Amino acid sequence: MIRAGIVGGTGYTGVELMRFLSRHPEVELAVVTSRTEQGKPVSGIFPSLRGVTDLAFSNPETTALSSCDLVFFATPSATAMHQAPNLLDAGVKVIDLSADFRLRDKDEWERWYGQKHACPDYLSKAVYGLPEVNRAQISQAQLIANPGCYPTVIQLGFLPLLEHDLVETGSLIADAKSGVSGAGRALSQATQFCEAGESFSAYSADGHRHLPEIKQGLSALTPGRIDLVFVPHLLPIIRGIHATLYARLKQPGADIHAIFTSRYAHEPYVDVLPRGAHPDTASVSGSNVCRLSVFQPQGGATVVVLAVEDNLVKGAAGQAIQNMNILYGFDETAGLDHVAIWP
Amino acid sequence: MIRAGIVGGTGYTGVELMRFLSRHPEVELAVVTSRTEQGKPVSGIFPSLRGVTDLAFSNPETTALSSCDLVFFATPSATAMHQAPNLLDAGVKVIDLSADFRLRDKDEWERWYGQKHACPDYLSKAVYGLPEVNRAQISQAQLIANPGCYPTVIQLGFLPLLEHDLVETGSLIADAKSGVSGAGRALSQATQFCEAGESFSAYSADGHRHLPEIKQGLSALTPGRIDLVFVPHLLPIIRGIHATLYARLKQPGADIHAIFTSRYAHEPYVDVLPRGAHPDTASVSGSNVCRLSVFQPQGGATVVVLAVEDNLVKGAAGQAIQNMNILYGFDETAGLDHVAIWP
Amino acid sequence: MIRAGIVGGTGYTGVELMRFLSRHPEVELAVVTSRTEQGKPVSGIFPSLRGVTDLAFSNPETTALSSCDLVFFATPSATAMHQAPNLLDAGVKVIDLSADFRLRDKDEWERWYGQKHACPDYLSKAVYGLPEVNRAQISQAQLIANPGCYPTVIQLGFLPLLEHDLVETGSLIADAKSGVSGAGRALSQATQFCEAGESFSAYSADGHRHLPEIKQGLSALTPGRIDLVFVPHLLPIIRGIHATLYARLKQPGADIHAIFTSRYAHEPYVDVLPRGAHPDTASVSGSNVCRLSVFQPQGGATVVVLAVEDNLVKGAAGQAIQNMNILYGFDETAGLDHVAIWP
Amino acid sequence: MIRAGIVGGTGYTGVELMRFLSRHPEVELAVVTSRTEQGKPVSGIFPSLRGVTDLAFSNPETTALSSCDLVFFATPSATAMHQAPNLLDAGVKVIDLSADFRLRDKDEWERWYGQKHACPDYLSKAVYGLPEVNRAQISQAQLIANPGCYPTVIQLGFLPLLEHDLVETGSLIADAKSGVSGAGRALSQATQFCEAGESFSAYSADGHRHLPEIKQGLSALTPGRIDLVFVPHLLPIIRGIHATLYARLKQPGADIHAIFTSRYAHEPYVDVLPRGAHPDTASVSGSNVCRLSVFQPQGGATVVVLAVEDNLVKGAAGQAIQNMNILYGFDETAGLDHVAIWP
Repeated sequence: MIRAGIVGGTGYTGVELMRFLSRHPEVELAVVTSRTEQGKPVSGIFPSLRGVTDLAFSNPETTALSSCDLVFFATPSATAMHQAPNLLDAGVKVIDLSADFRLRDKDEWERWYGQKHACPDYLSKAVYGLPEVNRAQISQAQLIANPGCYPTVIQLGFLPLLEHDLVETGSLIADAKSGVSGAGRALSQATQFCEAGESFSAYSADGHRHLPEIKQGLSALTPGRIDLVFVPHLLPIIRGIHATLYARLKQPGADIHAIFTSRYAHEPYVDVLPRGAHPDTASVSGSNVCRLSVFQPQGGATVVVLAVEDNLVKGAAGQAIQNMNILYGFDETAGLDHVAIWP
Repeated sequence: MIRAGIVGGTGYTGVELMRFLSRHPEVELAVVTSRTEQGKPVSGIFPSLRGVTDLAFSNPETTALSSCDLVFFATPSATAMHQAPNLLDAGVKVIDLSADFRLRDKDEWERWYGQKHACPDYLSKAVYGLPEVNRAQISQAQLIANPGCYPTVIQLGFLPLLEHDLVETGSLIADAKSGVSGAGRALSQATQFCEAGESFSAYSADGHRHLPEIKQGLSALTPGRIDLVFVPHLLPIIRGIHATLYARLKQPGADIHAIFTSRYAHEPYVDVLPRGAHPDTASVSGSNVCRLSVFQPQGGATVVVLAVEDNLVKGAAGQAIQNMNILYGFDETAGLDHVAIWP
Repeated sequence: MIRAGIVGGTGYTGVELMRFLSRHPEVELAVVTSRTEQGKPVSGIFPSLRGVTDLAFSNPETTALSSCDLVFFATPSATAMHQAPNLLDAGVKVIDLSADFRLRDKDEWERWYGQKHACPDYLSKAVYGLPEVNRAQISQAQLIANPGCYPTVIQLGFLPLLEHDLVETGSLIADAKSGVSGAGRALSQATQFCEAGESFSAYSADGHRHLPEIKQGLSALTPGRIDLVFVPHLLPIIRGIHATLYARLKQPGADIHAIFTSRYAHEPYVDVLPRGAHPDTASVSGSNVCRLSVFQPQGGATVVVLAVEDNLVKGAAGQAIQNMNILYGFDETAGLDHVAIWP
Repeated sequence: MIRAGIVGGTGYTGVELMRFLSRHPEVELAVVTSRTEQGKPVSGIFPSLRGVTDLAFSNPETTALSSCDLVFFATPSATAMHQAPNLLDAGVKVIDLSADFRLRDKDEWERWYGQKHACPDYLSKAVYGLPEVNRAQISQAQLIANPGCYPTVIQLGFLPLLEHDLVETGSLIADAKSGVSGAGRALSQATQFCEAGESFSAYSADGHRHLPEIKQGLSALTPGRIDLVFVPHLLPIIRGIHATLYARLKQPGADIHAIFTSRYAHEPYVDVLPRGAHPDTASVSGSNVCRLSVFQPQGGATVVVLAVEDNLVKGAAGQAIQNMNILYGFDETAGLDHVAIWP
């Protein structure tokens, strides 16, 4: 039994962490902080948690987070980098769900986030928490950078192609569609019901902050230089990401479906569909599964990978729990064994 | 550990039963039948259950359902009444999620369902499975008639008012709104995305099949004659029912909120909100909770009860599991301890 | 041809006014003001208006609104009461879509809006713009208080019952459900896609600002004292209001459907459905129609009226255009002849 | 004034045709047929048309369609090819909104539609009704094959790139997303509210019937051999298509935005957004506009075109009206001047 804390518990990722942690057999959720809601019962803000937790939000300044074994940061970017170092120095383990420790290149981070990084030394110490790639390092980490939602599903989709050197790395395309919860809980015009609903559009087509994270991850899988066009879209659903990935095969003949199936055969949270099936986001809603399928339309040179996940689960809180389970040697599926809710 | 079977596993209620039973610590799900999909793996029809169950749908005619301890009927109306008697005679327990055994009055049943009842003798033997009213009888039952979705939330909302003789029973109003899954999985024009979505309407305002069930249940709570106007509406959400109930107080002065709170203090699945709060359907999505609040607008003579549930859980499959737990003496919350998924 | 202006053009009501006015045969839309967006082209904020209008938002302080014949206020409450008097003194006609001039009782207004009214003398001069009741006065008005969205549909639904003295006026119930656009375009947590979507709840069950407006309107139709319970709900659709109205008949026997049909036979924008039909909000989407039906469930003493409108059209901008047409003696349907968009 | 008829008036395309034709200044809508609903008033099936049309559906067998000047076929595929020839022989003009006359290659048609074509001679006589390409031929046609919804938006998006020989034609990608109304009004499990809503998936990734139509259209614009990967997705909105198009530039340097702007400067229904803006489907809802923007992410070799339309308007009924206007020499925007409804 470990003691865990959450910094920034009023966002969608925070609620999800509480949903999982409150039923986790090995964890006591001891602290949830919120600057804006301090003193209020968590279930007053989130009625879905009535009867589930008796915690109240506490002040992040004055709370003894260092009494926790593990602290999750579910904060906006540029927050964890200020608060995590003290905890790390005190021996607390940290899983950061924000982008603060995902890029190894300080300059790249500073370019995309428009500010100085507060603790660049930690960038190289952080372990990138994609279990399907880094399971061993995760188990030894003190600081885990939990992957972004788009980067998770896009890396898992391209991974077998790159590991097997099957495709041209210079012309990858990721056409990705995210449910609105991916934009977070902060108020914005674009995420109002009347403007996000019954509509669909791309955004940041000229460059999204997740691009360097995805390229960094893909580059680690291949000696080839990665060139990736990544176009995100806002999907009028609450949860779910669908990535449609395109790559040019270097040569015909490989049984790509078999390669995918084999690569993920022992992964508890990656599921390759039978040939010809298309994954849908609803089939993973609320669960930690990333579901994939592969096509080679008209037998041509382009391979199409379809990949879905729940952006708040495998794309955020669920993957963080998976990382925690690996880190502490718990069963990797402990507290994560939720069946997707359908319909 | 008991062996359970499901008859009619291809509807929304069937999927929900499988979601709960597949993770229930005391149950082995042994059989799921479907006339139309027999032979196919369950997870081929419902990808959300990939990795959760290896069952295939079996033929309801030839399957040895009598090898089960307990069989759930998740069938359309007028099916269980034909198949349940044989199982009951063989000593199998039955929880019927359809309407076949909910009404005690055969004539009433035949009037609303437009046909002869196939086994009217069982109408008086069946126990109406609303745990908050009938817990003791449920624990002794062989045949449980699981309540309808509207009847559950409406009875739980009116119950404390009637038990305490607080309101005129001759002018009750239930304005109820149900998500589309309440209409079932059979194809219909009204439940097509383009016709149910971005719209809202009442239906069956002149009389809905759940009316006699609700009146029967309310009548059992009071010596007064129940007169109820029940207007159901189709809500463009997948899951959730919201009932807005109106009743005229017999006299002023009672602390209605306190009466509700006290009545449900020990119920695991009824939650009364603090004064002034309004329940929302999303706060119970995927969970077995019925959440209530009460208002007395402008201090007038009308009391307003707001009540929500997930129609597929507390209004169907979850309540069936709760009934099973009571029936077998399991912890009443065993396998039902799911936190609502929000957002 | 008249010159019209809009004050506060960046809300949903403002866009709708522009949609109608830009195609109106008798109106030149000359000015649209916005404090926050001044200088920007209207179609830069609202791409749906690209190619429709070349106007840019202008500064409300410095714009010569008095050069207009008619000014619409599409502002939040407590704005028009400050700016309209100068225009009225300059001979400009004003249609106010906010609540500033809807209540005749200054004290009532101040109680519900929590501040002093800036120009109480105008409260008695304003004409309440419900054409089905006040057509003659509207045609002579200088200042029109355009009704609220809930008040329009609820008054039109109760009107024939009260005019014919058919029901008890002391126990009226209006269970109303509004699409999210009714909450306006200002940012709020409750109207975010992830919180308003896939959910449903009541709000302000203990008293909503539209209550006094509705009671004032209904009181004018009957000598009886109006007692009304009004419970609004937030519906996960963009446009549309559905009101379900309940009243107790004084005596049996009247042909209520015939009374409704007759009362509205010559109204261009009220449509009574055939017996037994239920109106749906989608059937009026984008159009100025209020659609009604009436039921008397189980032949009992309660009459149920179902009434729908597009809250942004008959409940706001469309009704304002209808009022303008009456005021200037245009054909009442000029520029309003839009067929509802379905599906 | 011409007399027009509609064959197959009970689908979504049929309702849209009626919405436009009922307000068209040059058309009398004389006949609407439906095999299943014959004899019933149109407004009984579609309440949105109450007060708009007094027509009843008539029997397609016995109706004197040949008394019309123009007949629209809004039927499923493989219907018009049986009925249109008689009308054409009688001198009636025909606009077919189905796929029966879109492909010039009989064998290709038969391969994709799995049956013999009933009147292959007409394939070469039919004019493909994409006004931005074929305006002159449309004005002289007797039989117009109205383009499919996907083909319209995808061709308009690629067109300037191909006409100016800017891109490799052998590696085009069209990642397209369609609202559910694109699937038509026939019942199907995939388009039920509970299965299409709150979800997103690709379909027909290995080959969709619109593929040969798109390739045929693109091939006419360039001497290069077209290779296209087309992946359609089902979007949980009622109306709207968004196509995200990818192509490799042959060489850097062209001002692509300027080329798009110039190409469509005089087109009434194609709108190119300013640099950096992203089109959204809601901005064209109910209107005949196709809205485009272009990006060149990170200044690389891939050009991305974003293109939206209302699939029932520019993708079906609106384009049919535009073709009719051209055919009869009416103002091309007559009866089509509808402003998009937003929000």
